[in-house]
Amino acid sequence: MSTFDIAGIAQALHTVRSEWREAQNRSQEPGGRELPSRDALAKIVDQLKEALFPMRLGPLDLRQESEDFFVAHRLDAALHALLGQVTLELRYSQRHSPRTGSDLQAQALTATRSLAQSLPEIRRLLDSDVLAAYHGDPAARGVDEVLLCYPGILAMIHHRLAHRLYQLGLPLLARIVSELAHGQTGIDIHPGAQIGAGFFIDHGTGVVIGETAVIGQNVRIYQAVTLGAKGFPKDSQGNPQKGLPRHPIVENDVVIYAGATILGRVTLGQGAVIGGNVWVTHDVPAGGHVTQAISREGQA
Amino acid sequence: MSTFDIAGIAQALHTVRSEWREAQNRSQEPGGRELPSRDALAKIVDQLKEALFPMRLGPLDLRQESEDFFVAHRLDAALHALLGQVTLELRYSQRHSPRTGSDLQAQALTATRSLAQSLPEIRRLLDSDVLAAYHGDPAARGVDEVLLCYPGILAMIHHRLAHRLYQLGLPLLARIVSELAHGQTGIDIHPGAQIGAGFFIDHGTGVVIGETAVIGQNVRIYQAVTLGAKGFPKDSQGNPQKGLPRHPIVENDVVIYAGATILGRVTLGQGAVIGGNVWVTHDVPAGGHVTQAISREGQA
Amino acid sequence: MSTFDIAGIAQALHTVRSEWREAQNRSQEPGGRELPSRDALAKIVDQLKEALFPMRLGPLDLRQESEDFFVAHRLDAALHALLGQVTLELRYSQRHSPRTGSDLQAQALTATRSLAQSLPEIRRLLDSDVLAAYHGDPAARGVDEVLLCYPGILAMIHHRLAHRLYQLGLPLLARIVSELAHGQTGIDIHPGAQIGAGFFIDHGTGVVIGETAVIGQNVRIYQAVTLGAKGFPKDSQGNPQKGLPRHPIVENDVVIYAGATILGRVTLGQGAVIGGNVWVTHDVPAGGHVTQAISREGQA
Amino acid sequence: MSTFDIAGIAQALHTVRSEWREAQNRSQEPGGRELPSRDALAKIVDQLKEALFPMRLGPLDLRQESEDFFVAHRLDAALHALLGQVTLELRYSQRHSPRTGSDLQAQALTATRSLAQSLPEIRRLLDSDVLAAYHGDPAARGVDEVLLCYPGILAMIHHRLAHRLYQLGLPLLARIVSELAHGQTGIDIHPGAQIGAGFFIDHGTGVVIGETAVIGQNVRIYQAVTLGAKGFPKDSQGNPQKGLPRHPIVENDVVIYAGATILGRVTLGQGAVIGGNVWVTHDVPAGGHVTQAISREGQA
Amino acid sequence: MSTFDIAGIAQALHTVRSEWREAQNRSQEPGGRELPSRDALAKIVDQLKEALFPMRLGPLDLRQESEDFFVAHRLDAALHALLGQVTLELRYSQRHSPRTGSDLQAQALTATRSLAQSLPEIRRLLDSDVLAAYHGDPAARGVDEVLLCYPGILAMIHHRLAHRLYQLGLPLLARIVSELAHGQTGIDIHPGAQIGAGFFIDHGTGVVIGETAVIGQNVRIYQAVTLGAKGFPKDSQGNPQKGLPRHPIVENDVVIYAGATILGRVTLGQGAVIGGNVWVTHDVPAGGHVTQAISREGQA
Amino acid sequence: MSTFDIAGIAQALHTVRSEWREAQNRSQEPGGRELPSRDALAKIVDQLKEALFPMRLGPLDLRQESEDFFVAHRLDAALHALLGQVTLELRYSQRHSPRTGSDLQAQALTATRSLAQSLPEIRRLLDSDVLAAYHGDPAARGVDEVLLCYPGILAMIHHRLAHRLYQLGLPLLARIVSELAHGQTGIDIHPGAQIGAGFFIDHGTGVVIGETAVIGQNVRIYQAVTLGAKGFPKDSQGNPQKGLPRHPIVENDVVIYAGATILGRVTLGQGAVIGGNVWVTHDVPAGGHVTQAISREGQA
Repeated sequence: MSTFDIAGIAQALHTVRSEWREAQNRSQEPGGRELPSRDALAKIVDQLKEALFPMRLGPLDLRQESEDFFVAHRLDAALHALLGQVTLELRYSQRHSPRTGSDLQAQALTATRSLAQSLPEIRRLLDSDVLAAYHGDPAARGVDEVLLCYPGILAMIHHRLAHRLYQLGLPLLARIVSELAHGQTGIDIHPGAQIGAGFFIDHGTGVVIGETAVIGQNVRIYQAVTLGAKGFPKDSQGNPQKGLPRHPIVENDVVIYAGATILGRVTLGQGAVIGGNVWVTHDVPAGGHVTQAISREGQA
Repeated sequence: MSTFDIAGIAQALHTVRSEWREAQNRSQEPGGRELPSRDALAKIVDQLKEALFPMRLGPLDLRQESEDFFVAHRLDAALHALLGQVTLELRYSQRHSPRTGSDLQAQALTATRSLAQSLPEIRRLLDSDVLAAYHGDPAARGVDEVLLCYPGILAMIHHRLAHRLYQLGLPLLARIVSELAHGQTGIDIHPGAQIGAGFFIDHGTGVVIGETAVIGQNVRIYQAVTLGAKGFPKDSQGNPQKGLPRHPIVENDVVIYAGATILGRVTLGQGAVIGGNVWVTHDVPAGGHVTQAISREGQA
Repeated sequence: MSTFDIAGIAQALHTVRSEWREAQNRSQEPGGRELPSRDALAKIVDQLKEALFPMRLGPLDLRQESEDFFVAHRLDAALHALLGQVTLELRYSQRHSPRTGSDLQAQALTATRSLAQSLPEIRRLLDSDVLAAYHGDPAARGVDEVLLCYPGILAMIHHRLAHRLYQLGLPLLARIVSELAHGQTGIDIHPGAQIGAGFFIDHGTGVVIGETAVIGQNVRIYQAVTLGAKGFPKDSQGNPQKGLPRHPIVENDVVIYAGATILGRVTLGQGAVIGGNVWVTHDVPAGGHVTQAISREGQA
Repeated sequence: MSTFDIAGIAQALHTVRSEWREAQNRSQEPGGRELPSRDALAKIVDQLKEALFPMRLGPLDLRQESEDFFVAHRLDAALHALLGQVTLELRYSQRHSPRTGSDLQAQALTATRSLAQSLPEIRRLLDSDVLAAYHGDPAARGVDEVLLCYPGILAMIHHRLAHRLYQLGLPLLARIVSELAHGQTGIDIHPGAQIGAGFFIDHGTGVVIGETAVIGQNVRIYQAVTLGAKGFPKDSQGNPQKGLPRHPIVENDVVIYAGATILGRVTLGQGAVIGGNVWVTHDVPAGGHVTQAISREGQA
Repeated sequence: MSTFDIAGIAQALHTVRSEWREAQNRSQEPGGRELPSRDALAKIVDQLKEALFPMRLGPLDLRQESEDFFVAHRLDAALHALLGQVTLELRYSQRHSPRTGSDLQAQALTATRSLAQSLPEIRRLLDSDVLAAYHGDPAARGVDEVLLCYPGILAMIHHRLAHRLYQLGLPLLARIVSELAHGQTGIDIHPGAQIGAGFFIDHGTGVVIGETAVIGQNVRIYQAVTLGAKGFPKDSQGNPQKGLPRHPIVENDVVIYAGATILGRVTLGQGAVIGGNVWVTHDVPAGGHVTQAISREGQA
Repeated sequence: MSTFDIAGIAQALHTVRSEWREAQNRSQEPGGRELPSRDALAKIVDQLKEALFPMRLGPLDLRQESEDFFVAHRLDAALHALLGQVTLELRYSQRHSPRTGSDLQAQALTATRSLAQSLPEIRRLLDSDVLAAYHGDPAARGVDEVLLCYPGILAMIHHRLAHRLYQLGLPLLARIVSELAHGQTGIDIHPGAQIGAGFFIDHGTGVVIGETAVIGQNVRIYQAVTLGAKGFPKDSQGNPQKGLPRHPIVENDVVIYAGATILGRVTLGQGAVIGGNVWVTHDVPAGGHVTQAISREGQA
């Protein structure tokens, strides 16, 4: 007799899968994988990181005189691999909501090219984030320490790439890229969030930033801050309405201390300071301070 | 002279180890490893994930026509490897608290077979969790995105396996499986917790669910929610009493928003809604709403 | 035509890098990598863990009779690799703030030797942490489960090594070692923090402990506890003053429940108990209890 | 200045490549790899070996009860990977000598299916080779030792697969498969050679068997035997004529000792024995013995 | 329809395997692998090489001050792994020819210990081989070049280990170890051959040395030399008789040039010189020279 | 008691090593590895192969539009790694035969640069070898098949690199590079041999070409051909004299069939044809044919 009745269990699992596919109206026909791959994305993002910061995140034996060759080679590999994943998402998306007149290959190429063109600007923005962290944290000893060590920077590298993918109509790839950083840092930024230059997240664990949040320049936030929605408006059939602006607008130079929760389409005016653990569901004027009874701007 | 006095330091470390073993009444006799291995468990769980969701978490080149072969082969490898780890835990456990009349190998086989038989039901429950996430998050675009990206799903795959191991008298293996997910998601569910179908954790970082918690069907919780104990009853010698029910009961259809803390053996009645950041140490009746002064059901 | 205009994008990235280097007064001369490597440190820490706990964290096929050889070999590899990283940090640090009369190689050797000499004491401290976790958590079934599974122990292994590096004037290496644990556990302990024997962090996700915190013996804290600073004193030019004691002092036998926030250079006296989610910015006397209106010592 | 003038050397290599492509009338257009991959083939052959001999060449942890699942899964992976390589060869071949009316994908599928259908017969032939080695070598202690250790068996596994590929019009894949064995064994069998059941090559290093050789059943040969051609007939333009039968016919039960050289389209009749180091360019009748003055049938 | 009819082919392969097992009287019962593993042996031999020559074949970062720790650790790992393989061979051998009164585990331990005790002597013999190569080849520039580069040395490292295994009654492990070197060097030495100190094989490809060959000290041979048998004496049933001495005896200080073939139990007396390509089936007296008409002692 | 007396065996091995070092006048002081590494060289040669033939031996996903970046990046990595190995050989060589006035680093750089400058010419020569194989073998279907499959080409890639290293005074590196090919192909070409364009070795196993051989253009040889020395002239102390020309000169357009042995400083004149298995120790005039009684130009 078999040790584990593998055949029986495999058959039972087959049955569950069939039920699932039937319930989801999925094809039962033979065929290959149709979904993008988390592992493939992880590798692509690693290659893009190396191309963006070759002497700091690239291979140990890289020398400055060969930087440009290295960058070009990594870009080439990363972009072609990305093109494959983009094609998978577009095909997947089309299968589940067919559109007419679309040439999938051309669309995928256009989107990937557009991401490629954005890379210099993304590097520029990330440089501003590094500087912001350096100036914002008294414990930071240098810009390189920030790039190498700070989870907030890792989260922003992923976000700035993911946001571009999101803008290009690739929400699934964008989400995978975001979750890769979430898993490593505990910082959960939806790829839809718009974030200006010089953004600094300190410590970071537990930060949640929602899909329609809009964040200006030189904003600083700490661990466990939530920029969330305040309930979901429902449509006539009782389903949550999608795409409505429902997260906060945070203007330039705002600081939000640890554990604060800002909910709904409220605006924190330029230079506002939100104390630790406070709960905000109304607009805060420019320069305003919101605190609990005791001072809360402390940080580790 | 030696660069680092390796011999001296190795000797000093030897001394510390001997002290530890003596203090712990551990054998100093030669012998091999007696503990299960975190790495081995990680590999086993990965194989089970592939067997449970072959076309989405399996290898990139898998095709639907060969799914069943793949599933059977993965199961076979995973279950035999698991049998080895189960044997290690049982032997370890017996050494530290010997029992009479036990045939270790037979026990290990019975436990592993039982886990194997549970897999189809576990897949069914996980399908319900995926659907719950899809329906519960307006940002979710499809069930496959949920399975691939959502940390809450990853945590539940681990939990549903870990809980079965826990039920089978394998608390150490169960704990390792749970902590593997905790490390990746920031979601800390004790393997003892009982959780019904259709459970959805959004964002997830900072969630803590205790050992004796009982959660019904279609419950939804957000990041940083704690389902904890309210102090530990002590026995006559002042030690915490083990095994007493000390965590909340959460009935069907409850929603708990981010940062809420529910402590002690209280019951949240069916359909109750607990607002963000609130602190609950009393029962909440079915359909009840607990909030702070301001509305708190907002989420990112 | 090229698919992606790799050459153009590489050129644009070159320009951004040049601007950055100019703004940072970095050399544009050819040369190799000057920064320590996160991957190298990760490997070194793994080797030190194996040398510290050979039968539990070492290779599966290790036997007790060969422990000492194994430990010596791992130490040798780890310490020589560490010497290389120490040299990189010292050289990097000297380049950015030159000192006179320093013999870099000799300094690096001295520092690495000193770390090596500390290892037995570090093991002893970690044994006390393991015991503290075992006695502090009613769910813990044995000391080995604690060492294998508890994220708080992983964080402390990293911290005790990182703190020693910090003391030896190697803040960058120290920070990398800390962040490796932060990424895996969600526990963020600055390497500068001084922590006594028998320290136990339960669950852990979201814990933040600041640079100048001082923690006594047998202290126990839970998830999402912050030991932070309450604003940064500025110098005459408006820059944050560095190095000032600005985080709490926590005396022996203190317990701090989940979500509590302690800010500033306050002292929690011996045996004090701080309830969940409370906010403390004043001293607490020995034996004092700080809670909100409702009891808050509950834990999962 | 650059250490190595990489740019200059890369440019010079570019020039050489361009000259080569021009001389070979190759396209200079951008495009991907058009050739099959040696590494891919090596992996495919390894998978087929595992599928053919699962309990002896398969993974260490395979158990007999799961053999069929394993075999099916390996076959599936190997055959789909092979389909990709077959497509590459057919496309490559078509580009260099276009044919009309050919549907490449269909051809590739047909060829791969045909190889797949041959596998049981190939296994049967290889079993006969193993038995022949076992009976032919007094040093062989068992059939499993033969399969695991004998280079002649390794060469025949590759040859029987390569020959099938050759028959299916895939000479490049066939050649790569043959050369993989040649590199490991020093046995060089052209994939075109026809070889009957029960073929045994002892020691093997230096054996060369030509493209049009025809070998019967139960033939035994030793190291450094050559079954070669005796000059190449030229066509009217002085080029060697291809495809003419130009290598020996070796009938059933022939034995050829080490270092013998048989050249041209001669026939060694059934049961003939060819002594060591002799040189044969004429037919040998059935049962004939060809030796030098001294006896040469000795073998190590 | 399935692309490849995997199920059908897997079934056909199942049938062939069943026929083979039936013909070989093999068990069809479920069970695991019973054969030693070529990969496992390859790893063990690599570890033993490192233990034998730590500063030349060991890891790049090894330093002399830690040699002994390294050697001990490698030995420990290699010997325990070897013990496992020895057990597999003994069990396999017992299953196919059962013996009474044997305690398999004890036998395996005794054999492995004996191999372990031989290692210093094996190293001493290999040192003599290295010196012989250095003195015997005008192109050799140093002893380290010889150890690193000469295939003859690689073959002798394998042979001296394999011969010991052969003496210990482990012919299958011995054969695998020999074939690993054969595959890399084209030198085929049967593990049974007895070879004295200071043995040097130059170039080596095509060398074959038979099971009962006996070679004295300071013997030198070149590529393609065969020390073979001259036919196999048959027993009364016509099967080759095993174990009879049937290969040459080569006394001290003999030189045999490339391509020479020595067959049968003949003796080459001390200091004899055998010219290239000659064929010898008679004894050669001490100091004798055997050449063809033209001088043949030339070598590349 | 210990299972294997590791400590005793390690001690005995220590003693043997000490004896060896004493006998070899080696330092017993602590220190690191001083020898170049076979593995490092293997990787360097692989990278150079990719740089020389990017679209055929480079990575599967390379595209022609990025060839130059790829080539530059691979060159950079390979050359810097090679510089390290060159430094090791020069330092090793200097320690064993000190020279005055040498700046090791500068020497190493000069040598590596010189190798780098040779690469385009080496590629050009290898192209001529590929064409020679294509035209010389009726079985060859295309130049790409030749590059991918023919062991003779692999041997020549290694030889042309090794010969350059030999010319640059790096005999140890050169030898390692040669032996890497010898191990894979059974073709043993001494790095000192001078070989003209368009050289073709068919089958190859067993070919040996000596250090001072000089080979013209468009020469073709087959398996088991030896171009060797005919004894070594001794100096006044009876040691072989080094560096004397002692191997054959083979002029343009010569063909040498399988198994032929050419010994000593003889000259094979332009266009000469040497038959299979013949033994030549005298000059052969231009256009001459040397055969045995029967025709020997046959080939597989």
